[in-house]
Amino acid sequence: MTQIALLTDFGTTDIYVGVMKGVIHRICLQTRCIDISHAIQPQNVRQGAFALLNAYSYFAEGTIFLVVVDPGVGSIRRPLAVQAGGYRFIIPDNGILTYVLAELDDVKIVELANSAYQLPVVSNTFHGRDIFAPAAAHLAAGVPIDELGPESDTLLQLSMPQLNVTGQNLVGEVLSIDQFGNIETSIGNMRWDTEAQLTLTPRFGDLAEPVAMVAKQVSVNIRGIHLESLLPSYSAVAPGDLLALVSSGGYLEIAVNQGNAAAQLDVQVGDQVKVQLGDAVWNNS
Amino acid sequence: MTQIALLTDFGTTDIYVGVMKGVIHRICLQTRCIDISHAIQPQNVRQGAFALLNAYSYFAEGTIFLVVVDPGVGSIRRPLAVQAGGYRFIIPDNGILTYVLAELDDVKIVELANSAYQLPVVSNTFHGRDIFAPAAAHLAAGVPIDELGPESDTLLQLSMPQLNVTGQNLVGEVLSIDQFGNIETSIGNMRWDTEAQLTLTPRFGDLAEPVAMVAKQVSVNIRGIHLESLLPSYSAVAPGDLLALVSSGGYLEIAVNQGNAAAQLDVQVGDQVKVQLGDAVWNNS
Amino acid sequence: MTQIALLTDFGTTDIYVGVMKGVIHRICLQTRCIDISHAIQPQNVRQGAFALLNAYSYFAEGTIFLVVVDPGVGSIRRPLAVQAGGYRFIIPDNGILTYVLAELDDVKIVELANSAYQLPVVSNTFHGRDIFAPAAAHLAAGVPIDELGPESDTLLQLSMPQLNVTGQNLVGEVLSIDQFGNIETSIGNMRWDTEAQLTLTPRFGDLAEPVAMVAKQVSVNIRGIHLESLLPSYSAVAPGDLLALVSSGGYLEIAVNQGNAAAQLDVQVGDQVKVQLGDAVWNNS
Repeated sequence: MTQIALLTDFGTTDIYVGVMKGVIHRICLQTRCIDISHAIQPQNVRQGAFALLNAYSYFAEGTIFLVVVDPGVGSIRRPLAVQAGGYRFIIPDNGILTYVLAELDDVKIVELANSAYQLPVVSNTFHGRDIFAPAAAHLAAGVPIDELGPESDTLLQLSMPQLNVTGQNLVGEVLSIDQFGNIETSIGNMRWDTEAQLTLTPRFGDLAEPVAMVAKQVSVNIRGIHLESLLPSYSAVAPGDLLALVSSGGYLEIAVNQGNAAAQLDVQVGDQVKVQLGDAVWNNS
Repeated sequence: MTQIALLTDFGTTDIYVGVMKGVIHRICLQTRCIDISHAIQPQNVRQGAFALLNAYSYFAEGTIFLVVVDPGVGSIRRPLAVQAGGYRFIIPDNGILTYVLAELDDVKIVELANSAYQLPVVSNTFHGRDIFAPAAAHLAAGVPIDELGPESDTLLQLSMPQLNVTGQNLVGEVLSIDQFGNIETSIGNMRWDTEAQLTLTPRFGDLAEPVAMVAKQVSVNIRGIHLESLLPSYSAVAPGDLLALVSSGGYLEIAVNQGNAAAQLDVQVGDQVKVQLGDAVWNNS
Repeated sequence: MTQIALLTDFGTTDIYVGVMKGVIHRICLQTRCIDISHAIQPQNVRQGAFALLNAYSYFAEGTIFLVVVDPGVGSIRRPLAVQAGGYRFIIPDNGILTYVLAELDDVKIVELANSAYQLPVVSNTFHGRDIFAPAAAHLAAGVPIDELGPESDTLLQLSMPQLNVTGQNLVGEVLSIDQFGNIETSIGNMRWDTEAQLTLTPRFGDLAEPVAMVAKQVSVNIRGIHLESLLPSYSAVAPGDLLALVSSGGYLEIAVNQGNAAAQLDVQVGDQVKVQLGDAVWNNS
């Protein structure tokens, strides 16, 4: 069984997501739908791109991602199927795969032009139902990706998140804030080892070739607040206290134990965050 | 496999929907549950009836719809199973099928009176768990609808939405507002053809026999605002601008590209909307 | 097929629940996930414990409950698998099973210490993804519970809800308020029989051995409001009117027909509720 993972900005108040699943299972009774989230902010393609980046690799090989954050619905933006790294993605061509494709190889792009794999009537306002869901379902049912339309070699790209590295100083930005108020930044991939030593291989930014930095001392600045070190987990500080740590996605995270860091610091997506690695060593081997 | 599509006003904050699914899969392990929405406004039967109308036809033939918007729970309103047009519906008898049944044939109504297909203890406050979910699950497991109770020939009806047609003037009402603030009206079924010509076959209203109107010029009035024409999609206007278009359900829709039309116009469900078809031709053939 | 029922405080705005399901189905393609709720208040273990108590018994025997309300993530609190009464529970050791285990026998506790059944990299902030979801999935795939780690014989306990019985007077507390504003109290198990006679076998409280009380007259006091009797269902009073009744979970419930009792009475979780049984008879047989 091939499964379909859904990520949209449709919310779950209206019938839109349910109707897409109705369409999917009418075409392919045996597939499974998994909701990643339907609460991407309306038409916030960049937020959707990060959510997909942080989620996709936890899904089984072969999973089809149906990603509909689509401010251009009904316009000339192209509907696409993209195959990469053992996964397939059904998307509007608006840059939503930018960050995922930076990690995957063997990319193949197909335009969803074959009307045989769309609903008989295609509206101008709900391509999720009329074009994207049918394409995902036909792939799940075994239709080869080449049947969906002609191959293409272009894909719209979003700008990369800010991450400047100058010696031991890193300047990044706030990428996302979750419902707990935890703040995730563009400073990643970070990983603690058992000796409380941090290894950082920047995921984004202007490094020609990402290399690992290894450091034991880390200080963080955000909104005028200074945090002297990275701690291993929320419970390393008292409830209500602020801390910096490595997020579950491997980024620098600022949080409050059992509290809301974004509200407490009045932080917004896009705000600047600075990190100084006190004793950083570049590791070019 | 027969699947069950759920539409309720239970929300997803509480455990109610999860418990219904627990009950369903205890009776029929192999069925699939699909959520249409659980965010119908509490006890708003009319909103539920429209949501079901706009969703049901996208689901596979044979789907069982479990619809629980039930202000009369515990009173004498009857719990029913209704078979129509290849689908089955498990509902409280409160009019929620009014609009769907206007489109379907071969209607059979059964009262859910056989306690063998209910939970052993039936509460007075949660028939969704004790009566409706078990009925849907037993149908999915292959129990014939006649086993659930005696046949009935009455069904409570809601009033039809307002739609008056006088020559080329149509007066309708706002039926629903989605979470994006898009406004859907009772003026449907509308369909654009490739020559930007609109065909309208009123779905509701006082026409003895619905006939098609064909028009190229359309003007819309709502809350004192005048829109000169129907446009093909949101992106036909600049972000933040108002437009009228044909919704994904085939109704007249008023929207703001990447914005919230209902908030901008201060529109409520039930508000009047007027349409003038400049050069409409009745098509009685 | 063994199914997994999920109860968390993760919300459905972020990708957390979707990622857990991705992990589950990568390990066990054939299991089914059922959402009980993801809207437990952040880190409110007691609310989670009641939600689980009110939900679990409606699920098929063999169901695995994956319960992640985990203020201590990353600290030394132990991750556990608990087997009891034909069910299995994957939980952090924080008392969340207190009320369920008061009803179940044959309890076996295993610490989730075997890293072979965790993700290769375990973060300090998302054990739901890295430890709990993999454990549930491996159980669903047929791994024996003993494989997950060493047996344990301790389990953290929450305090029991307040319920004092003095003769015919009961003093309890508000346990939970649902999204409709219905108020559920610690006074249960109550059951109406067909002669409008109430039987009450206290579920919580300080009775050495719970026994049944049988009463026909019941009066309720909450926030200075006096309700003279228990009624069979919401519709026994006019819309907007207050009533006391037996909830779908068997507790004393205070509600407003088609309205919000908690808002109308300004009631909070933990508030006191008093009941006087006018003609109660103890039934010790």
